[in-house]
Amino acid sequence: MHFTLQHTDTLTKARTGLLTTDHGVIETPAFMPVGTLATVKSLLPRDVWDTGARLCLANAYHLYLRPGTEIVKEAGGIHRFANWNGSILTDSGGYQVYSLSALRKITDDGVKFKSHIDGSAHYFTAEKVIEIERDLGPDFMMVLDECPPSNAERAVVENAVSRTMLWAERSMEHFQKTKPLHGYDQAAYLIVQGGVHRDLREQCAEKLVSMNSFGYAIGGLAVGEPNEVMYEVTDWTTDVLPKEKPRYLMGVGTPIDLLESISRGVDMFDCVIPTRNARNGQIFTANGKLNMRNAKWKNDFSLIDENTPSYASQNFTKAYLAHLFNADETLALTLATMHNIAFYEQLVRTARVKILEGTFLQWKTDFISRYTLVKI
Amino acid sequence: MHFTLQHTDTLTKARTGLLTTDHGVIETPAFMPVGTLATVKSLLPRDVWDTGARLCLANAYHLYLRPGTEIVKEAGGIHRFANWNGSILTDSGGYQVYSLSALRKITDDGVKFKSHIDGSAHYFTAEKVIEIERDLGPDFMMVLDECPPSNAERAVVENAVSRTMLWAERSMEHFQKTKPLHGYDQAAYLIVQGGVHRDLREQCAEKLVSMNSFGYAIGGLAVGEPNEVMYEVTDWTTDVLPKEKPRYLMGVGTPIDLLESISRGVDMFDCVIPTRNARNGQIFTANGKLNMRNAKWKNDFSLIDENTPSYASQNFTKAYLAHLFNADETLALTLATMHNIAFYEQLVRTARVKILEGTFLQWKTDFISRYTLVKI
Repeated sequence: MHFTLQHTDTLTKARTGLLTTDHGVIETPAFMPVGTLATVKSLLPRDVWDTGARLCLANAYHLYLRPGTEIVKEAGGIHRFANWNGSILTDSGGYQVYSLSALRKITDDGVKFKSHIDGSAHYFTAEKVIEIERDLGPDFMMVLDECPPSNAERAVVENAVSRTMLWAERSMEHFQKTKPLHGYDQAAYLIVQGGVHRDLREQCAEKLVSMNSFGYAIGGLAVGEPNEVMYEVTDWTTDVLPKEKPRYLMGVGTPIDLLESISRGVDMFDCVIPTRNARNGQIFTANGKLNMRNAKWKNDFSLIDENTPSYASQNFTKAYLAHLFNADETLALTLATMHNIAFYEQLVRTARVKILEGTFLQWKTDFISRYTLVKI
Repeated sequence: MHFTLQHTDTLTKARTGLLTTDHGVIETPAFMPVGTLATVKSLLPRDVWDTGARLCLANAYHLYLRPGTEIVKEAGGIHRFANWNGSILTDSGGYQVYSLSALRKITDDGVKFKSHIDGSAHYFTAEKVIEIERDLGPDFMMVLDECPPSNAERAVVENAVSRTMLWAERSMEHFQKTKPLHGYDQAAYLIVQGGVHRDLREQCAEKLVSMNSFGYAIGGLAVGEPNEVMYEVTDWTTDVLPKEKPRYLMGVGTPIDLLESISRGVDMFDCVIPTRNARNGQIFTANGKLNMRNAKWKNDFSLIDENTPSYASQNFTKAYLAHLFNADETLALTLATMHNIAFYEQLVRTARVKILEGTFLQWKTDFISRYTLVKI
C-alpha cells in the first residue's frame, strides 16, 4: 500500500495523488461515501461503484455492535461481507462512543460505554479497536482518539490531546504487533485533535508525525465551529503534516467545505451530507441545493441534473422524484442518494483535473460563486 | 397490439403465447411486478428489467390521487414518467375503491368515494376510468368493475355481476370513442366477476366475450376463499374465455398458485406477494420460503439463492441480508425484492419452457413437492 503525491498546486496547497491498496487505486482528492453499517444507505454496491467512488467509509463501533465483529470476520472481512470490490476505511468509532453512547466513562486506559441499541456495556481500548479493525479487515484503520465537544474549555481539549497522543502510540505499537487476517494489507491513520487551538493542533500533529503512520487525519472539526475556523485549523494542521502522506479531514462537508479544504492541502473526505440530506429530499447541483419536497417540482419535467453523470441524474425528472418523495417511496432515497454521491464524486474528480491543469483556484472561485448565487 | 397463442399443453390447459405491445414483446405465461405508484417499491427500473420482467402493473386509482393524472399525462405518459421501457398495465382501481376508501357509495352510474390519503371526495364512472387511463397511457387498461367481498351473499354477487357487465359495456363504448394520447396503442381488458358461483362466472364471462375486448381478466379471487375454490373458479372461467385471447388472473398469487393457474389456462398474473413479503424479510426459493429475520441466518454465508439469476441472489450472503434486515437498512428491501421478483420471473419463464417441451405437468408436480417438503 502506498500514497504517491503527484502534483501540488502553485497558488494554493491543493494536491493530487494516488492512494494504492490491495483493492485498487484511489485518485485523490477523494470523497468517501459513508457506509456506516457496511452499506451505503439505499444503494447497491454496483451503484456506489458507478458513482466513481473507489473508497467507502464504514464504522468499527457500529459493526462491532451489529452484526458483531465475529460475523464480519467469518465472512472473510468487510469487503466480502458487503460485496464491495473497492477499498474501505473504517472509522474507529471514537466519535460515536462520545456522541451516541450513554454513560460513557473515559480514562487513560480506555472508554467504557453502553450500546445505543440495547444498553449493553462495552469497553474499548486503543488495542481493542486495532483488534476489531484487524477482524473487520478494512484497507485503512482509524485509531481510537478522544474527540472533545466543540464548546469544550481549553483544559478539556488539552486533556483530550494528551489522551489522543497516548492512545496513538499504543495503537501504533499494537498495529505493528498484529497482522492482517484476510489476505490483503492494512494501514493505519492517526488522528490530530486540538480543537481550535493552534498550539495544541501543532503539538498533536508533530507528536503523531513522529510515530510515522501511513496517513494522518484531522479530527474534531465540523462539530459546530464556524466554517472559517474549520478552514483555519485545517490550514495550520496540514502545514505540520508530512507532504508525502495522505491527509484526511474527517466528517467534512458541504461542496464548498471540500473545495476550501482541498485548497488547504486535504486529500480525503467523508461526510454524511450527500447521503443523509438525500434521504431528506435535498439534492445538490452546480447551481446550489434543491429541496425535492417543495411543491414547485411537482410538474418540472427537467432531468434531476443533466450535468451529473449518474443513472439517477440523467434518466428521471424532478417531477418523478418529487412524486416519489411525496408518496414516501423508497426509490426516492435511492435516486437522490445516487445523484448526490455522483455529484460529490464528480466535484472531487473535477478538482483533481483542475489542480493538474493549474486552474484550480479560478475554477474553485467560479464554482462557489455559481453555487451560492441567490436564485430569483 | 396482438396476442399470439403459441402452444397449448396436452395434459393440462397450460399455454404459451406472445403478447406484443408498442413497447415490446412479452412472453406468456407472464408475471407482472406490482408498481402501484409508478415504482416497483425499492427497485430502479433497470433492476426490474434485469429480473426479466417486461410488463409491470400500476394502479389508476393510486396515480389519479398521487401525483395526479395530469402530471403523468404532462410527463408524456406513465412509461416516460417512470422511465420504464417495457410495457405497463394499469388496474382501474375498482378493487382499491372498495378496499381502501371510506364512505364509498356505489350506484349503477358510478362510485363515490373519499381518498384514503386526504379524505377528499371523488367520483369514478366507467367512462371516467377510461379517460384516466388514456391520460396515464398504459399499454393495457383494466375497466372499472365491482368486486364483492369473498363472504358476500349470492344476491350481492349477482348485483355486482350485473353492474360489472353494464360498466364493461360502457367502458368498451368509451374506449372505442377515445384515442391513445401518447403516440402508442392501448388495449382494454374486461374483468369477469361472479364470486364462487359457477353460473354467475359463466354468465359474466359469456357476456364479456360478446363485447370482444383485447383480453380478459378474472377478478374477485384471492380475496379469502380457499385455494382449491380459486383454482376451480379459474378452471370454469377459462373454459368460457376465447382461446385466442390473453387471460389474466388478478392479484394471484403464491408460486404454487401461479403453477396451478397456469395449468388451468391463465396467461398473466400480478401479485404483491414477492414485493410485499420481501419487505417483511421473506424470500422465496425452490425449497420454500425463508424468513431472513430469523436468527439462524446471522452467520450463514451461503448466497441468498444460487439458483435465481439476479445480482441480489448471486452476490450477497444470507448473513449479509439478515444483517441489513436486523439493522433496518433500506438495502435489505432492495435485495429481497430484487431476488423475489427474479424468482417469480424465473418460475414463469421455466413454466413456459416446460409447456413448450411438453413436460409441464411433471415439472409442476416436482416443483410443488420440493417447494412444500417439510424441512428438518
